[in-house]
Amino acid sequence: MRWARFDRDGSPSYAVVEGDTLIPVRGSPFDVWERTGERLALADIKLLVPVVPPTFYAAGMNYAGHVRAVAAKIGQPPNLPERADIGYRANNALIAQGERIVIPADATDMVQYEGELVVVIGRRCKNLTRDNALSAVLGYTVGNDVSERNWQKSDRTMWRSKNTDTFKPMGPWIETDVKLEDLVTRIRLNGEQLIEFPTNSMIFGVVDFLVTMTKCLTLYPGDVIWMGTEGATANIGHGDRIEIEIGGIGTLSNPVVRAQP
Amino acid sequence: MRWARFDRDGSPSYAVVEGDTLIPVRGSPFDVWERTGERLALADIKLLVPVVPPTFYAAGMNYAGHVRAVAAKIGQPPNLPERADIGYRANNALIAQGERIVIPADATDMVQYEGELVVVIGRRCKNLTRDNALSAVLGYTVGNDVSERNWQKSDRTMWRSKNTDTFKPMGPWIETDVKLEDLVTRIRLNGEQLIEFPTNSMIFGVVDFLVTMTKCLTLYPGDVIWMGTEGATANIGHGDRIEIEIGGIGTLSNPVVRAQP
Repeated sequence: MRWARFDRDGSPSYAVVEGDTLIPVRGSPFDVWERTGERLALADIKLLVPVVPPTFYAAGMNYAGHVRAVAAKIGQPPNLPERADIGYRANNALIAQGERIVIPADATDMVQYEGELVVVIGRRCKNLTRDNALSAVLGYTVGNDVSERNWQKSDRTMWRSKNTDTFKPMGPWIETDVKLEDLVTRIRLNGEQLIEFPTNSMIFGVVDFLVTMTKCLTLYPGDVIWMGTEGATANIGHGDRIEIEIGGIGTLSNPVVRAQP
Repeated sequence: MRWARFDRDGSPSYAVVEGDTLIPVRGSPFDVWERTGERLALADIKLLVPVVPPTFYAAGMNYAGHVRAVAAKIGQPPNLPERADIGYRANNALIAQGERIVIPADATDMVQYEGELVVVIGRRCKNLTRDNALSAVLGYTVGNDVSERNWQKSDRTMWRSKNTDTFKPMGPWIETDVKLEDLVTRIRLNGEQLIEFPTNSMIFGVVDFLVTMTKCLTLYPGDVIWMGTEGATANIGHGDRIEIEIGGIGTLSNPVVRAQP
C-alpha cells in the first residue's frame, strides 16, 4: 500500500495511491482511517512531504564506499562506524517531491546529493528485538540528504551543511510493501544515471538501528530514520534536476536553483 | 505572562498562570486564544512540557567555565566554540516538571545535570537582524540537559548520552516577560545550592544564535533553543532531587531514579 500526503483546502490530508489515482482518506496511516468516495488524478495533485516527523533521525555514514569517498573529499581519514550510533536532521529543511532545492548564495559549489532509504515508524515502541523490530515500521520512502561539503568540514554540528532550508527532500510517498533485500537505489542527474547500488548493503541495517536505538529511546509514530547513502557523490547546481529512485518504492525528483546574492 | 500546558481530559491544553491559579484558554500562545471562565488551583494540576518543539535546538558548549570543566572531566582539551553553531536534541527525551529522570540500569555513575535557559520561538521567521531578533521569541523556560559523561565520550552523535528517554526535563512553564541581563541560574541538588551564575553570561547570546541560525534556516512557532550551562556539573543518582531555578522564570524540579537491571 502506498500513502501520500497532500494539501486539501489548506490542511494536510492522507490518501492511498493506486496507480495514477489518489484516494483521500479520513484519518491517517498512524491511526484508524477510512477511504472517502473521492478519486483524484495523481498528476493534478501537489504532494506534501509524506510525514513531518516528531524526531528526524539519520544514520549518517552507513555504507563503506561512501565513508571512504567523503573522507577523501574533505581531506580526513575514513572512519568506519563501529556501532549503530544514530544522528539527527531537522524538519525546517524538509521539502516534498518536485519542490526546489535552493542553494544559498554564499554556499560553495560543493553542494551534493545523497540518495537514502527512509524508514517511517508506525508504532510507539521501545526495546525492540531482532524478531519484532520490523513490525514497528509503517513503510519506507526516499530521502535526499543534500550536503554542503565545505560547511560540513567546518560546522561543529553539521547544522548548516545538512539542515539549511530545502536541503532535505523526502517523498514522494510511503510504501508499506517492501522487501529490503530486493531494493535497488539509482541516482540520476539530469536524466543520466550516476550510481546504482543495492539499498540494503548498509554497514548497519534497519533492524540493527531499530534494536540499538530502542534500548535507550522510545520511537513514535511518524519518526523517520534516514539510512545513509553509498558511493561518491557529485555536485549539483543551478538548473539541475536530481532524482533518487528506489525500485519498488518510488522516485524522488527535485530541481535545483541557486539563490541570488 | 506565564503559559503552562496541562492534560485536559486526555488532550493537551494551554493555560495562563496567575499566582497559584491556572486559567485555561481556548487556542494557544502560538495562535489566537481567549481565556475560559474556569479557574484551577495550580497545585492540583499535573503540568506537561510547555511545548513539544517541531525542532529541538541546543547550543551545547556555550559558557567558558563549563567548556573547560567538561573537557577536563572527559580527558580532552577544551575547545571553545568559535561560532554560534547550533546542535540538536530529541523530543523522545522530554519530560515535564516533577517527572522522574530514569537512569538506565547500564549507565555509569557519571550522569550529570546541566541547567539551561530555553528560548521558545513564537513566530515563523528567517533572516532575523540584531534589532528584530528578540521579537520572534514567545518567552523562556528552563531545561535540564541530563548527560551520561562516559557515553558522551564514546557516542558518535551524543544520541544516547544526551537523548536517552527522560534525559531532557523542561518547564515548568513559559515566561514571556524576561530581561535576559537580569536572569540568575541557581542549581540545587537535594536542596543544597551547587552553583549560581548570571544566565546571560554566554559565549554566544540569544540574539547571536537567532541571527546566525536564521541566515540558513526558518524557525517555526514552538521551536526551542537550549542555551547551554555554566561551570562544572556533578553526578546525580537514585533518590536525588535536582532543581534548576532561573529567577524570574521558575524552578524546574525532578526526582531521579535508577532503573533496575
